Amino acid sequence: MPYEHVNNTPSREQQMLDKLDLTKTADEKEYAETLSSLQERLGVLQRALRDLNIPTLIVIEGWNASGITMSVHEIIQALDPRGYSLHAIERPTREEKDHQFLWRFWLRIPPRGRIGIFARSWYSRAITEEMQNPSWQKSLKGRANRINRFERQLADNDTIIFKFFLHISKAQQKQRLEQRERNPLTAWLVTPAIWNVHRHYDDTLPIIEDFIEKTDTDYAPWTLVEATDQKFTILKIYHTLIKTLEKRVALANSGKVKKPKEKDLPKSRKNTIQRRTSPDSAVTREESQQTMMNLQAEMLETQYLLFKRKIPLIILYEGWDAAGKGGNIKRMTQHLNPLGYYVVPVSAPTTNENQFHYLRRFIKRFPTGGDIAIFDRSWYGRVLVERVERFCTEPDWQRAYFEINEMEEDFVTSSGGGIIKFWLEISKDEQLKRFNQRAEDPLKKYKITEDDWRNREKWELYDEAVDDMLARTSTDIAPWTVVESDDKWFSRVKTLQTVLDTAQRLL
Amino acid sequence: MPYEHVNNTPSREQQMLDKLDLTKTADEKEYAETLSSLQERLGVLQRALRDLNIPTLIVIEGWNASGITMSVHEIIQALDPRGYSLHAIERPTREEKDHQFLWRFWLRIPPRGRIGIFARSWYSRAITEEMQNPSWQKSLKGRANRINRFERQLADNDTIIFKFFLHISKAQQKQRLEQRERNPLTAWLVTPAIWNVHRHYDDTLPIIEDFIEKTDTDYAPWTLVEATDQKFTILKIYHTLIKTLEKRVALANSGKVKKPKEKDLPKSRKNTIQRRTSPDSAVTREESQQTMMNLQAEMLETQYLLFKRKIPLIILYEGWDAAGKGGNIKRMTQHLNPLGYYVVPVSAPTTNENQFHYLRRFIKRFPTGGDIAIFDRSWYGRVLVERVERFCTEPDWQRAYFEINEMEEDFVTSSGGGIIKFWLEISKDEQLKRFNQRAEDPLKKYKITEDDWRNREKWELYDEAVDDMLARTSTDIAPWTVVESDDKWFSRVKTLQTVLDTAQRLL
Repeated sequence: MPYEHVNNTPSREQQMLDKLDLTKTADEKEYAETLSSLQERLGVLQRALRDLNIPTLIVIEGWNASGITMSVHEIIQALDPRGYSLHAIERPTREEKDHQFLWRFWLRIPPRGRIGIFARSWYSRAITEEMQNPSWQKSLKGRANRINRFERQLADNDTIIFKFFLHISKAQQKQRLEQRERNPLTAWLVTPAIWNVHRHYDDTLPIIEDFIEKTDTDYAPWTLVEATDQKFTILKIYHTLIKTLEKRVALANSGKVKKPKEKDLPKSRKNTIQRRTSPDSAVTREESQQTMMNLQAEMLETQYLLFKRKIPLIILYEGWDAAGKGGNIKRMTQHLNPLGYYVVPVSAPTTNENQFHYLRRFIKRFPTGGDIAIFDRSWYGRVLVERVERFCTEPDWQRAYFEINEMEEDFVTSSGGGIIKFWLEISKDEQLKRFNQRAEDPLKKYKITEDDWRNREKWELYDEAVDDMLARTSTDIAPWTVVESDDKWFSRVKTLQTVLDTAQRLL
Repeated sequence: MPYEHVNNTPSREQQMLDKLDLTKTADEKEYAETLSSLQERLGVLQRALRDLNIPTLIVIEGWNASGITMSVHEIIQALDPRGYSLHAIERPTREEKDHQFLWRFWLRIPPRGRIGIFARSWYSRAITEEMQNPSWQKSLKGRANRINRFERQLADNDTIIFKFFLHISKAQQKQRLEQRERNPLTAWLVTPAIWNVHRHYDDTLPIIEDFIEKTDTDYAPWTLVEATDQKFTILKIYHTLIKTLEKRVALANSGKVKKPKEKDLPKSRKNTIQRRTSPDSAVTREESQQTMMNLQAEMLETQYLLFKRKIPLIILYEGWDAAGKGGNIKRMTQHLNPLGYYVVPVSAPTTNENQFHYLRRFIKRFPTGGDIAIFDRSWYGRVLVERVERFCTEPDWQRAYFEINEMEEDFVTSSGGGIIKFWLEISKDEQLKRFNQRAEDPLKKYKITEDDWRNREKWELYDEAVDDMLARTSTDIAPWTVVESDDKWFSRVKTLQTVLDTAQRLL
């Protein structure tokens, strides 16, 4: 949908509005009545979305003085404050700046059943930030791709996305800014910076056009609003929201769930990743311990270098129950500076976490420059426990391979950091031996629960899920390392050595 | 406990350690064995605290190079990562700076059953920030008072608090800094700023001594650690933690809960606050509507002025079910700029929120400079629904009057803002009328639930709770306004007028 059309030919949307006699010529009374009835309908829809557990995202973008604030104001008049959040995007904080560009928006996505309204969003941020970049054309294209991924992931996980761009001409903008300057209440808001942006209107227009075109997708389409007239703007926004939401609510109520699109699975590497439980050659415990202590000393040194060069690292552990994740992590961190690493123990999501996209709680804990984040279990729960225990649907976990690969790629490319993924492999017999040992030790028996025995019965289902996971998510950028862990000491040495090798490549 | 004693006479604690033969002369093997046994005991205690739902706070403060990081490192060796959080306090972010001094620490308090470890804390921040203040002596005293309040509130709500100060002499500090400078891995950490602080050691000492003395309380005592020897430091910290925690766990397991101290209730103002349901003189609906529209226009103007002068405002609504809070808030905000206010709808706390001090979820949403936060129900739930429905104990809600007054005072004095508190009063008959109207209206019947009818049956109990609340929490700094709300239009005009009057006093 090329942007220039807004000014030239009226869109179908606009024609429809024209027919409804709700345009610039509508009289005050008629307008008030129409608006009031639209507000009532939107209020009803909000409650329906809440009952259906559907998250909704509304982005309002546009030129300065195009009426973004006024539009937000009018939308929320219809809404129950219990069910929406409004986000006015300011300059990123230090923490937000240290993370990748979309991190702070990931944290603000709406939970199930709620509406998230963004008065300006990742679009304004992308354009504002990149305009100062000499190679902005290339980097804006990169941002558009990442935004499309982000929105597709949200849409694939049931979010309804609206994006409005409020358009006014340069002359109209000038007029409105001057009007604000004349009002003593608002004059101080019209800063020299805003006038400066205004002067560059003609240079900015094609960039915005291009960016809108690149991010106009079937899962998150743009609605362009000719924002010359305030009433027209409001009615068009209401109309668009209501039309789409009514369709979605009717669809959900009819029980017909849209079929997710088939996607090509990544090429299987099944045969390239061997899972073995024991190393090729035996090493004595004493030898391993001595090696480990040397490696730990090197780890501390490496940590300082990563910290100094602001390179973040993710180390994640997956593996069979009792494969030795805890002990392994303990040795990994034993000599590290505690202010530069943190362990993220991952359990089943809480009720609150479950209201959001399943990746959000992990992205939230991603490390920034120089920090090491160690995940004890991870997002791979989606394709392991959630798949086997049927906590999500098959399309959900099938799609997750892509979503995870994309998330990891985003982290690595944007941060310059690394992701190291360990699968701790033990044999079924070794697991039994360790379960029994734990059950008999009064200091360790708290570690073994009914769940562990139940999971063990599903060994073969998990085995298949692990094979698929290793095959489909071992990427060049974030490969899996299978760690033979029947021998705990070998396992500890191998993980330390792998982290050191990877870190040294990054330094 | 004057600070200088650390250097002169050995404390009882130290004598005890001496007896245990765990001092500087302990040999390596003996030390390793003792440490390993202490770690095991602390691990067991951590699980006990988790099962007992007791939150624990550990603050480690001290001079630069006194071994804070090393101590934290050694403590967490004993702990299950699932059960603790480590907070290394950096410079405050922009958002944190805009809030009152303790706001960011409120957000980081440990939830029930978990341990929060602070490597430096509000103490370092207070001293660092105030040293640049010309009138630091007075302001440090103010900070000490607020810290004592903060810690008392946490302790009163079951938190166990440890505070360690690691002490080394100026000569020792010099020696350690030089040692770090000689190591290429750590040299870059010894900045000119750190040497500068070192040069002011002698000036800083009495300030720290004084601050420690002022904040050494029975609910949050300081433990001073002569940190010359690393082994001694670790053992003393472990020993202190284990001794106190074992006592607390034994006490909790014995079922004997410590009796909360009696406190003087604030003087009752029962007779000064009249609750009436109707205004003295009748006004027509048309008159009210006209007045309201004028006041709304003034409200927008006031919002801009508050925003410009960075004065935050809290407006909170409490009242009987169906007293008209929602409609009232709608009129309050109808003409406001949506980017400068937000509504916080308060429901029962979530499972996660319930793990924390009950005030935390409200403090989290407090406004900063220029914002208006409107609470639809509030922290007064503690002394209303939680009292009547027995969701907390009587000592809990009796103590809450103080805690709330203190919190409100902290907000007002630190931000220069205002708190406006509305109690919307209607008669029992009027409530019945409105309940029935709602039940009959298909668009409104979702608003009325079984709970509403149940609450109505407890009208008298709530009535008593409201009287106590108005009497005990109507302070000069944050008085209650009772709003006669049988007439909705009168109610809306009165709340708007009250907000305008208060705001004008603040401007």
